[in-house]
Amino acid sequence: MPGNAKTLTDQDAHEANAQWGGRFAGGPAAIMQDINASIGFDKALWRQDIAGSKAHAAMLAKTGIISGEDARAITEGLDQIGHEIAAGMFEFSTALEDIHMNIEARLSDRIGEAGKRLHTARSRNDQVATDFRLWVRDAIDGLEQQAAALMRALARRALEHAATPMPGFTHLQTAQPVTFGHHLMAYVEMLARDRGRLNDARRRLNESPLGSAALAGTSFPIDREMTARALGFDRPTANSLDAVSDRDFALEYLSALSIMAMHLSRLAEEIVIWCSAPFSFIRLSDAFTTGSSIMPQKRNPDAAELVRAKGGRITGALVGLLTVMKGLPLAYAKDMQEDKEPVFAATDAATLCLAAMDGMVRDLTVNEAQMRAYAGSGFSTATDLADWLVRVLKVPFRTAHHVTGRLVGKAEAKGVGLAELSLAEMQEEEAGITQDIFSVLSVDSSIASRTSPGGTAADNVRAQATHWLDTLGAQK
Amino acid sequence: MPGNAKTLTDQDAHEANAQWGGRFAGGPAAIMQDINASIGFDKALWRQDIAGSKAHAAMLAKTGIISGEDARAITEGLDQIGHEIAAGMFEFSTALEDIHMNIEARLSDRIGEAGKRLHTARSRNDQVATDFRLWVRDAIDGLEQQAAALMRALARRALEHAATPMPGFTHLQTAQPVTFGHHLMAYVEMLARDRGRLNDARRRLNESPLGSAALAGTSFPIDREMTARALGFDRPTANSLDAVSDRDFALEYLSALSIMAMHLSRLAEEIVIWCSAPFSFIRLSDAFTTGSSIMPQKRNPDAAELVRAKGGRITGALVGLLTVMKGLPLAYAKDMQEDKEPVFAATDAATLCLAAMDGMVRDLTVNEAQMRAYAGSGFSTATDLADWLVRVLKVPFRTAHHVTGRLVGKAEAKGVGLAELSLAEMQEEEAGITQDIFSVLSVDSSIASRTSPGGTAADNVRAQATHWLDTLGAQK
Amino acid sequence: MPGNAKTLTDQDAHEANAQWGGRFAGGPAAIMQDINASIGFDKALWRQDIAGSKAHAAMLAKTGIISGEDARAITEGLDQIGHEIAAGMFEFSTALEDIHMNIEARLSDRIGEAGKRLHTARSRNDQVATDFRLWVRDAIDGLEQQAAALMRALARRALEHAATPMPGFTHLQTAQPVTFGHHLMAYVEMLARDRGRLNDARRRLNESPLGSAALAGTSFPIDREMTARALGFDRPTANSLDAVSDRDFALEYLSALSIMAMHLSRLAEEIVIWCSAPFSFIRLSDAFTTGSSIMPQKRNPDAAELVRAKGGRITGALVGLLTVMKGLPLAYAKDMQEDKEPVFAATDAATLCLAAMDGMVRDLTVNEAQMRAYAGSGFSTATDLADWLVRVLKVPFRTAHHVTGRLVGKAEAKGVGLAELSLAEMQEEEAGITQDIFSVLSVDSSIASRTSPGGTAADNVRAQATHWLDTLGAQK
Amino acid sequence: MPGNAKTLTDQDAHEANAQWGGRFAGGPAAIMQDINASIGFDKALWRQDIAGSKAHAAMLAKTGIISGEDARAITEGLDQIGHEIAAGMFEFSTALEDIHMNIEARLSDRIGEAGKRLHTARSRNDQVATDFRLWVRDAIDGLEQQAAALMRALARRALEHAATPMPGFTHLQTAQPVTFGHHLMAYVEMLARDRGRLNDARRRLNESPLGSAALAGTSFPIDREMTARALGFDRPTANSLDAVSDRDFALEYLSALSIMAMHLSRLAEEIVIWCSAPFSFIRLSDAFTTGSSIMPQKRNPDAAELVRAKGGRITGALVGLLTVMKGLPLAYAKDMQEDKEPVFAATDAATLCLAAMDGMVRDLTVNEAQMRAYAGSGFSTATDLADWLVRVLKVPFRTAHHVTGRLVGKAEAKGVGLAELSLAEMQEEEAGITQDIFSVLSVDSSIASRTSPGGTAADNVRAQATHWLDTLGAQK
Repeated sequence: MPGNAKTLTDQDAHEANAQWGGRFAGGPAAIMQDINASIGFDKALWRQDIAGSKAHAAMLAKTGIISGEDARAITEGLDQIGHEIAAGMFEFSTALEDIHMNIEARLSDRIGEAGKRLHTARSRNDQVATDFRLWVRDAIDGLEQQAAALMRALARRALEHAATPMPGFTHLQTAQPVTFGHHLMAYVEMLARDRGRLNDARRRLNESPLGSAALAGTSFPIDREMTARALGFDRPTANSLDAVSDRDFALEYLSALSIMAMHLSRLAEEIVIWCSAPFSFIRLSDAFTTGSSIMPQKRNPDAAELVRAKGGRITGALVGLLTVMKGLPLAYAKDMQEDKEPVFAATDAATLCLAAMDGMVRDLTVNEAQMRAYAGSGFSTATDLADWLVRVLKVPFRTAHHVTGRLVGKAEAKGVGLAELSLAEMQEEEAGITQDIFSVLSVDSSIASRTSPGGTAADNVRAQATHWLDTLGAQK
Repeated sequence: MPGNAKTLTDQDAHEANAQWGGRFAGGPAAIMQDINASIGFDKALWRQDIAGSKAHAAMLAKTGIISGEDARAITEGLDQIGHEIAAGMFEFSTALEDIHMNIEARLSDRIGEAGKRLHTARSRNDQVATDFRLWVRDAIDGLEQQAAALMRALARRALEHAATPMPGFTHLQTAQPVTFGHHLMAYVEMLARDRGRLNDARRRLNESPLGSAALAGTSFPIDREMTARALGFDRPTANSLDAVSDRDFALEYLSALSIMAMHLSRLAEEIVIWCSAPFSFIRLSDAFTTGSSIMPQKRNPDAAELVRAKGGRITGALVGLLTVMKGLPLAYAKDMQEDKEPVFAATDAATLCLAAMDGMVRDLTVNEAQMRAYAGSGFSTATDLADWLVRVLKVPFRTAHHVTGRLVGKAEAKGVGLAELSLAEMQEEEAGITQDIFSVLSVDSSIASRTSPGGTAADNVRAQATHWLDTLGAQK
Repeated sequence: MPGNAKTLTDQDAHEANAQWGGRFAGGPAAIMQDINASIGFDKALWRQDIAGSKAHAAMLAKTGIISGEDARAITEGLDQIGHEIAAGMFEFSTALEDIHMNIEARLSDRIGEAGKRLHTARSRNDQVATDFRLWVRDAIDGLEQQAAALMRALARRALEHAATPMPGFTHLQTAQPVTFGHHLMAYVEMLARDRGRLNDARRRLNESPLGSAALAGTSFPIDREMTARALGFDRPTANSLDAVSDRDFALEYLSALSIMAMHLSRLAEEIVIWCSAPFSFIRLSDAFTTGSSIMPQKRNPDAAELVRAKGGRITGALVGLLTVMKGLPLAYAKDMQEDKEPVFAATDAATLCLAAMDGMVRDLTVNEAQMRAYAGSGFSTATDLADWLVRVLKVPFRTAHHVTGRLVGKAEAKGVGLAELSLAEMQEEEAGITQDIFSVLSVDSSIASRTSPGGTAADNVRAQATHWLDTLGAQK
Repeated sequence: MPGNAKTLTDQDAHEANAQWGGRFAGGPAAIMQDINASIGFDKALWRQDIAGSKAHAAMLAKTGIISGEDARAITEGLDQIGHEIAAGMFEFSTALEDIHMNIEARLSDRIGEAGKRLHTARSRNDQVATDFRLWVRDAIDGLEQQAAALMRALARRALEHAATPMPGFTHLQTAQPVTFGHHLMAYVEMLARDRGRLNDARRRLNESPLGSAALAGTSFPIDREMTARALGFDRPTANSLDAVSDRDFALEYLSALSIMAMHLSRLAEEIVIWCSAPFSFIRLSDAFTTGSSIMPQKRNPDAAELVRAKGGRITGALVGLLTVMKGLPLAYAKDMQEDKEPVFAATDAATLCLAAMDGMVRDLTVNEAQMRAYAGSGFSTATDLADWLVRVLKVPFRTAHHVTGRLVGKAEAKGVGLAELSLAEMQEEEAGITQDIFSVLSVDSSIASRTSPGGTAADNVRAQATHWLDTLGAQK
């Protein structure tokens, strides 16, 4: 009923108001709370914040800036706070804005005066830079291990299918036979580069901003080498202004994730296509598909689709942060608070993608017959024929190319494959062709012949897979 | 102590593991839950989901597909569920994946058999498309009102400062005097276009996907006009495949927000610069700055900085969704579940930006003396001199341009302004110059002369501001 | 030979140097030439620049700012210059930086003094804003016509295939039968929205910046309505500062193109998949594939792949310009010169995509048998069965859903389709089932039953296609 | 005149048509030429293509696949073609599509039969991958040297201004005094990371795809190590499918450029602000500004603005290519042809940015008095006062913070600086304060005290600058 509808949409409008306009009915105070309070997301940094403060306190004591007694009180206090947070017993306060102030305030509550000495010779600017670097470093370590796990899964399946023919596509058109193992190993190479990028990013970020203070350094006789070492950093950063203004480590990390996610999107796309009825190259396990009680045959490759999609989100995170940082004068600006949510979201996405792909790869079932059938169709060994002409008859390649073209045309006209042409028919196009030509026209001989380094011959694939399994270690 | 450090980082690694690798220790089940469960974010759609289901049930009854009694039970049940959710009493279940299943399951719990009839002649595909359109439409309505409020705030301040001179910059170099009101009114024009884009997006999205079912339509004799009307849509969508595959409304919305956020980033940047000590053109109210107990003079324009940054995040959301949608075959694919979080995040950002900017504009204090001083320096009226030569002496413009250049050079060499040159000195460069020339060299006369439509003359600014205040209505 | 190699790479390094470092060996002068000279790309604006100058001159004469004689000389001079450029006889000079200065300088060369009066009461800032708006408006008009042509091509093929069954996919898994015509009409709807967005962008950009001068307006008694009308604009812009600082029209245009390109990427992706051997749903004409002399069967869908890819480039252009504009203080800044190349490149890409897609759609051949076979497999009519239970037996939908699930399970176990189950077997699961059930299990009956508005029934498709062909007119 | 206008716009429409619709009036042939022909841009690869072919021919001869005589003919032929191209005497043919076919066809023209043997055991897929990697590698080498040059320029100016005070900003609000040298050295650190990223990208890309052939490797007994060495690659790629499908090297390169361009945009933004009249911290040389004959005082920082803007364009290139690659099945697809233009455009932009920034940094003049004045205003040494309380009186830092706040409040109320308060006034807030406090309140003492590693003390800055100048070598 329209009347009803009107009521409904009026109410909607009112509620929408409450959701949008109304959210800031509290005026400036409500707005500034939303701007300043990062505790909603930066509490994820609590482990890193406590580790950083412990290292700082130990250094302050060592250099005589605070007493050993104070440092011990601080350390114990922080450990207890860590336990509270881990146990879900800590009450985060929005009024205290962020994780750093929440922890420091709680510390002073617990241990009094000593707590107020913790912030000597540092500032929130170097503190947050330190915490966030530590967080990204941990994330890299986690993803790097996940990527290695996926490489192992791929290499194992590749070893298993080192000789399983599949059609090698270009333009999604059958080009030449390859092996399924070879195809999977292509992704191992991609992931190896991804790990390389993550490791390079880790190495580059692994400098300690702690001690850069607000922006100019400090007059206290601090020992930045000591805190750097304590936190597993290779060295202190070299310029205090740069140290508090820099978010390269987040950007480089997001760049590496974007490229990795692009790789995973390609495999995901292939899985979606391979699972489609006309292809039916593989079957995903029940665990990685969703069905429908009404169409039990429907095995929706949701996991693959989500992996494909998440790459877009990660690219969005990268673009977002690049744009945030564009044109910012030194040193710290509030804009930089917008660094964390994209990094957290992209990390979640990458973690899920790697885990989902790992699971799919382990469990998928290969329809070898279907793959082999398509590998042999479409004159997929025409290149082998041309290469035979070059190798045996010494015909220049471009000429061999043309002869082969005519032979394929003849076969197509007859509705047969190349191997079904008679020797006589072949000789009409090139008199020098001998019976030997038929030895290169099968899928298996084609694959077997591709022994050039990096080529698809089964032994190559086995060696490549074994090499990676050895390199990555036996675990899992 | 390094030993300590080692322990610490070992533990960190372990915990990091727990955070990353460990999150999916539950294996495929844990992974698929993360992939499938959207309830964590799509519960934001609850109002829209209930409205859609009520409209659907009423239509099913009207067309005789279900009984009137069933429809009444469904409507009442849904209303009660709405109250539960609004009151925070509803228990969302991850196992039930999303908001649609959560509500439908709860409905069947409450009203039994009738609840199981609700999903007749629809599918989750058209249901989610409907809900999400309604949500975006509500968001547009909210933002559109906020944009209007900001326009009013700008126009009011513009009216107040219609005659307040400020230096008009190009390249951030003084070019010609303008008024502060004129400058603010430039943003009113931008926001007017933003509202136009939001309204166009609203008009284009305002078609009802409901009744498109899974992808092919349905064999039930549904009345899509009726549900469309009930939900405030202008008409049903015309093609069922398109209806469930389409996310244009989200993309167009994000595009409009990206451009609007870019506008706001420009004003935010100006505010940051104007607040900097060397400029000191304006002062933000305490409510929109953050201070420092140690440097009470420090009035960090955090609100402006955040507005500037949020634009980057919104662009990231747009890029993310464009990339997600790229190359997706019809119809629904799981990839499309990645549509909501970017839209929600961008909406939050835009809402906050508009509210913060509105507050800053209302409260800022203008340092008129400082603005006037810079408006008059830098030979800012040189163009007025050239225009006088053209207008009065009929010198061709390009020639007048050169004469003026020489006069400014002379003034600069003497270290004075143009108005401080004597008539004789002027006549050395152009004999026709008369005493009248001095009437165009002041800041006020320069501004007053710019009476061309859209120009900076105070009356223009007043008329423009009044026009907008009238158009936007007197509220607030 | 390694020695050889070394020489080679040494030489390479040297040449690389020449390419990179060496390009600016000329020092600042060479650098500033690259920064300032936009003539390399902005000469594309010559038609618009001449049209704008003619309109400006006519207005200057009408308002008495210049003489009628001067205006006539200017107009004739500009027309002659237009002929020179069109004929490829014009020598563009990098020293004169841009198209505006090139034309004005040439004009003064030709007509002397009068030429120097042309720039009265305008500035390059409003001139370039005017020219670029006119260019984008022309581009919109061109693309809008191309989009209409593609809609007609799609609608014609849809009319032809209004009853041709194909498998309707979700997740690229067979879901329900649809018609190929219905599938094509989904893209007609998308393109209709694209045209709507282009038209809205055109309407919003259609205001004349001319007369805004450098940034503040002018003291000359210009008639901005007159120049606006002469150039086909709806009205002058309302604020001079905004007019020279605004690039919304380019951004909104790029947003519309990004969404349109995304649509085309989806159809392109489908074409690539449909052309793949396992699918073989369609065959592209020779004109739109590339072959290989060695594998004549290879019909690479290069045109479709390029359409799919170009969307990425267009999104890149949008992001680029959004980032350029972020945080720019008013008014003009040199940054804004970076607006043209992305717009030109995106326009080229969009033009090519529409033309290529139009050609592919017109010429493609449909493999109806293959489509029909897949449309009927995979229990694609299970939903029809469930709907029958609801409609005829009044079983609640959720229950019907479960019954159907069991029946499909039974059929799958027997390795048959649903229609191959006996009535008795069906009745084991639901006693009320009658012989009538078999009337809904075929592909054709399923399609025929989807008569709800927007549904896939052939008559719907015909009506939809006819509607659009009527709306778009009979041309082409 | 409206009549006139109509004619004009009709003509416009017609011309627009010619520009857009008309471009493809030639139908499919015209379209496919635009799709296939990459010669318009990939001719930039000519040096790399010739180098690759020479290495390939030498290897074919060494392994006995072709004769030594043929190899010599090929090498000489290619060298001659190289000379032709370098001399601008080569006629590029669109019909031959790309640089590879252009050169190979010309080779066969010149040397006949032998030329037709060159393409043995390779394919365009591995050939273009090889050429493009070589091009990107050369680009990296060029940019890496430019970045080093800019680092040297910055370090030299930093050495010169190691003790020149400037206000250190956070939020563009005065925070603490720093030195101009320290500020410049922050950018040296950023560029050092940029070079690190470029070098890592170079190392990772430095594997030879040559010999991967179409996608599966080849049956010829090729020596991929030999061609790899000849082209300066570290080794052959390990998987042929990956080798022809991979564009990571372009993406990683664009990521590194995006981050570097972001750094440059920050310095560019600062330069624009510093050049603005109210700041007047620096003056750019005439060579890097554009003036105006009418306002000679106007020194528009066009070079800085363009550097700021170009970053947006580079980000756009990265996003474009990431989106192009998203979800592409292996192996080669035509989509990948869209890789070159973004890389070329981004390289041009980066080259120009580095050159322009290098020039600006070398030539800029520092207004030391202005910088010093702002460095000392705004209670910029309040932190020094607080630190004195901690260090000398052992007040906990948080308490010292509060005391300082009260003292600044008192000074502000009196309208004086901190150093202008009397000792008595200070002691009212904290009795322990002694005359010694005044030793820490000047700009110079504040800077001098920041001796912590990475801090702004002049000796630190000198050491840092000297370190980098030593590391980078004395050249230039």
